[in-house]
Amino acid sequence: MIITIGRQHGSNGRDIARSLAAELGYACYDKEILDQAAADSNFSREIFESYDEKKISAFIVPTPHYIGMNDGLRLNMQIASAQFEAIRTLAEKGSAVFVGRCADYILRNREDLVRVFIHADLPFRVQALMQRKGIEEDAAKKLIKEVDKDRSSYYRYFTDQIWGESEYYDICLDSSRIGVPGCVQVIRSYLDALN
Amino acid sequence: MIITIGRQHGSNGRDIARSLAAELGYACYDKEILDQAAADSNFSREIFESYDEKKISAFIVPTPHYIGMNDGLRLNMQIASAQFEAIRTLAEKGSAVFVGRCADYILRNREDLVRVFIHADLPFRVQALMQRKGIEEDAAKKLIKEVDKDRSSYYRYFTDQIWGESEYYDICLDSSRIGVPGCVQVIRSYLDALN
Repeated sequence: MIITIGRQHGSNGRDIARSLAAELGYACYDKEILDQAAADSNFSREIFESYDEKKISAFIVPTPHYIGMNDGLRLNMQIASAQFEAIRTLAEKGSAVFVGRCADYILRNREDLVRVFIHADLPFRVQALMQRKGIEEDAAKKLIKEVDKDRSSYYRYFTDQIWGESEYYDICLDSSRIGVPGCVQVIRSYLDALN
Repeated sequence: MIITIGRQHGSNGRDIARSLAAELGYACYDKEILDQAAADSNFSREIFESYDEKKISAFIVPTPHYIGMNDGLRLNMQIASAQFEAIRTLAEKGSAVFVGRCADYILRNREDLVRVFIHADLPFRVQALMQRKGIEEDAAKKLIKEVDKDRSSYYRYFTDQIWGESEYYDICLDSSRIGVPGCVQVIRSYLDALN
């Protein structure tokens, strides 16, 4: 069984993924996807980190050297492609929970795939980020806007689907009211209903 | 507790609502909203039926007499307004499940509100409608497109939210794989997690 978890920034989607994986005895892949991609390619771990779920841009390429427009776009594609290959490699290793990074789309042809999306209301997410990162309210709001814009754009670019639109997921949950344990419980209830 | 269930056409959302309400001992309001609206207003039951979750149009008004553009729009607003008032009236009567008709938005200020959206993949919905209505595949596909376009447009017009976009709901479920009993089970698991 493969479970993918897309998540709004500050919705605690990663904690839900970790907790769910621990309860089920599954592997959990979040930043570990980048480790795998770096191990299997000629790009460094840092390169994968800097491009991770970022808006695709042909112009702004955060590398030490100037790169022309087409080179920038080509680099984007190569890095994304290596990351998607890492997702396929990890999925072959057994039951797992994947966090973000278009894994739902990359693994869409598997019959044992369950696609989850976690969101939360804005005050909840602002509070979560203020605590997690020790930042002010305005900075948290700005960060949410930026990160979600990147994730949404990245997802749209590679999947041609709309990030967070319910029809692309088996189950979407607002974590604001039921928290991490509640979300884990409801996802497990969906998994039970599958059997 | 008030539970609202938005649903794609053919996703069995109504059956899920009825089954959930029966299990919880709640009232279930679907077309009953139109009965209440007709009882409380000067419009007939048939008028409510013909405008029910339809795309708002200032031009095409399905009444026996010609009505000018502004009159048509005004009629739309009066009918919708009576329907929304009926939802508020019914919600005052006690715990209930409401099907569609922007009830999630109309009752948004209640703390005890749980907003559900049910969708399903297209082949599942086509099959469901072919069986339910005894129609051919092409007719089922056409019907799904028309009805969902109406519902989506109606919802957008009155709520300024996007129909089926996960962030406007507490829980969204694909009913294709887990069916009516599975969806009821997962929604109940969400309700349990709230307590």
